[in-house]
Amino acid sequence: MPVYGARNVDNVRIGVIMVGLPARGKSLIAQKIVRYLSWLSVPTRCFNVGNYRRKETAHPTAEFFDNANAVGERLRRNAAEAALEDMIRWFEEDGGVVGVFDATNSTVERRKWIADTLLDAGVEPMFVESWCDDPSIVMHNIIDVKTTSPDYVGTDPEKAITDFQNRIKKYEAVYETLGENETDLTYVKLMNVGAQVVINRIQSYLESRVVYYIMNLHIKPRYIWLSRHGESEYNLGGQLGGDSNLSERGQMYAKKLPSLLQGALEQSVFPDGKVPELTVWTSTLKRTNQTARFLDYPKRSWKALDELDAGVCDGMTYEEIEQQYPEDFKARDDNKYEYRYRGGESYRDIVIRLEPIIMELERQENIMIVTHQAVLRCLYAYFMNVPQDQSPWMQVPLHSLIRLELRAFDTIETRISADIPAVSTHREKGSSAKHA
Amino acid sequence: MPVYGARNVDNVRIGVIMVGLPARGKSLIAQKIVRYLSWLSVPTRCFNVGNYRRKETAHPTAEFFDNANAVGERLRRNAAEAALEDMIRWFEEDGGVVGVFDATNSTVERRKWIADTLLDAGVEPMFVESWCDDPSIVMHNIIDVKTTSPDYVGTDPEKAITDFQNRIKKYEAVYETLGENETDLTYVKLMNVGAQVVINRIQSYLESRVVYYIMNLHIKPRYIWLSRHGESEYNLGGQLGGDSNLSERGQMYAKKLPSLLQGALEQSVFPDGKVPELTVWTSTLKRTNQTARFLDYPKRSWKALDELDAGVCDGMTYEEIEQQYPEDFKARDDNKYEYRYRGGESYRDIVIRLEPIIMELERQENIMIVTHQAVLRCLYAYFMNVPQDQSPWMQVPLHSLIRLELRAFDTIETRISADIPAVSTHREKGSSAKHA
Repeated sequence: MPVYGARNVDNVRIGVIMVGLPARGKSLIAQKIVRYLSWLSVPTRCFNVGNYRRKETAHPTAEFFDNANAVGERLRRNAAEAALEDMIRWFEEDGGVVGVFDATNSTVERRKWIADTLLDAGVEPMFVESWCDDPSIVMHNIIDVKTTSPDYVGTDPEKAITDFQNRIKKYEAVYETLGENETDLTYVKLMNVGAQVVINRIQSYLESRVVYYIMNLHIKPRYIWLSRHGESEYNLGGQLGGDSNLSERGQMYAKKLPSLLQGALEQSVFPDGKVPELTVWTSTLKRTNQTARFLDYPKRSWKALDELDAGVCDGMTYEEIEQQYPEDFKARDDNKYEYRYRGGESYRDIVIRLEPIIMELERQENIMIVTHQAVLRCLYAYFMNVPQDQSPWMQVPLHSLIRLELRAFDTIETRISADIPAVSTHREKGSSAKHA
Repeated sequence: MPVYGARNVDNVRIGVIMVGLPARGKSLIAQKIVRYLSWLSVPTRCFNVGNYRRKETAHPTAEFFDNANAVGERLRRNAAEAALEDMIRWFEEDGGVVGVFDATNSTVERRKWIADTLLDAGVEPMFVESWCDDPSIVMHNIIDVKTTSPDYVGTDPEKAITDFQNRIKKYEAVYETLGENETDLTYVKLMNVGAQVVINRIQSYLESRVVYYIMNLHIKPRYIWLSRHGESEYNLGGQLGGDSNLSERGQMYAKKLPSLLQGALEQSVFPDGKVPELTVWTSTLKRTNQTARFLDYPKRSWKALDELDAGVCDGMTYEEIEQQYPEDFKARDDNKYEYRYRGGESYRDIVIRLEPIIMELERQENIMIVTHQAVLRCLYAYFMNVPQDQSPWMQVPLHSLIRLELRAFDTIETRISADIPAVSTHREKGSSAKHA
């Protein structure tokens, strides 16, 4: 962990333990926590007990989950023990900081065992319960998620739903919600997807970040639209940074963008069949504002969406940087994510300033963002889970629109080219060619 | 509200309604919310019902607060009505965004009246209850706050405490905590200063920020230490920005800083009589790291503490800026808080990037911050409640240490000079003199 992000200021190790009946969105929350913290450079991993159990029992029926079924009970306990052992080994040997333990963990007894085991290993347990009594949310989860579960591969969907509902009943018979006898535990209890949230004994900075993040999640399906600004005058000369105007071709892109977006919106699927209101976010720089100028939606400009600050290299071309700062040029190639321009920023710095943007994006529904190459790469890396050693090298051509469809367990990307020529601003590692 | 800070993205007006028995820290929370949001440029004001009641009844005894006392009841109701009317007028006529209604608001009936009245006026009600059954916290509040209350001016402190305890009993007789019959309300319930927090139906972005802020508050007394870096080579030439080394005198300050701090720590009062561990925060620039190098405490460097980015003016003197960018120079004088250097930042931009620092400072205890002139002004403005039109002009000489003692209702500032000469970097409005 680098110090300057101060993401783990208390130097703690946290075991996030999911709690909840099946079909309450536990795995969804678990995976989002992993993605969010990984993006912030916090070493985070999920340990899903179901995956361990499936090694022994790939396609169990509901009866397997009956508490009176001794064989099933033993196998499920074995799976939980194996997962917890692996998680603790990961903390100790691989420098893990946040481990997410994804299972129902539905009884006080089971939770006490997990908490005690983690505390013995020097890991702070933090429980995250997803509690839900809204039948429409539960049914939505059953259909949307569980018919695609590995447990039901090759099973008729109708039968899978019935069996899964029976499995839930087996759990309901023994389920104990987090509560009165567990006030010593650190926990967050989300009720009906955050309509009410109970937060108990949250202590460290990292815990408070996780709480704030999951408080802001919602499950409405939606799209995020991303575009770089149109080609700028600086782009033409291969210069970095600055605050130049759009080139002639960049202006053509700005004019075409409304119909490009409209066409894509009409091909998107919205819950109520209606194309929703969008909000357009831009940076504070001229080239993004000029690109968005013909989009007839409410607009907001954010300093946090400004391009990576190249410091002393602002306004220079890659060739000039290679000549004037050869060591810096090489250092940036060696670790583009960490390299900070003299007097400027690194990709890591951008991620830190983008964090409030990500938080706000999680709260919002349909947003169109017009921004810059490096910033777009970082936003994209969050949604698509791209590792840090790859994201700074990602190709994002000018004059194309990216649609991200955010779904429960994946994000589908569509790229729509405006078919307006532009220079390439992508630089391969080791190259200083003005245009690739 | 400027758009780029996106502090009021939902365009809402919020009435924050405090709930709780006397001596539960309601006014403290209310005042911190006002200070925090005002610092973020959100128009916020507190309406304290006690102040309205005191216009009629300056020094009531406990009997005045008995629910069976019809005269007292009517006067208290009148005060609440007058305060709420003023608050709604402020929303409607003065562009208020967050009004904080500070009173006990201890019954379901009273809260329903407030919520209905606000909703009729197009204001979203959000209740913030401080609930506490820890006698040591309550007694601490009684002694620390209420013996200085205007109600008890001139009263013997022992008598004041007894009377105030009686007043609390009168409220306890009718008190109803937020709960089961109020699940339609938006509320936050803080139990024993955040040991447990219940959050119900939080919706807008601003509400979620307020929740996260009050979740992070604690009430332990403590000090924040602030210092600018020692005089730098750029300071000598009157140049802005850059990343230069300390001058010879700057290095003298760095060497003297440990004993300066140690002496001040020994003159500070800590609850258990022991001088506590500090953590030292610096920016990522050489001059703050060189200044902190002899401080024998854990250190953390934050990009967010870097100096205001002067963009194209980085490295220039004020004289040069006045010659090369005369219009900018004048624009900055006209509104120094809002003026953003070409390709750089404004004071407002700094405040936005300092927000996570403030949040972390609220969570921490004793922190020493070595940073830069503009950043220090913004941090100071938060703690000392300095208006935006004044904070950018504040004098913070080089080579002096500022101690802020954070107490319940005020902050006491002490400045300790190291007695090492340095140039002045303060520029008066309208002047471009290199050194004042």
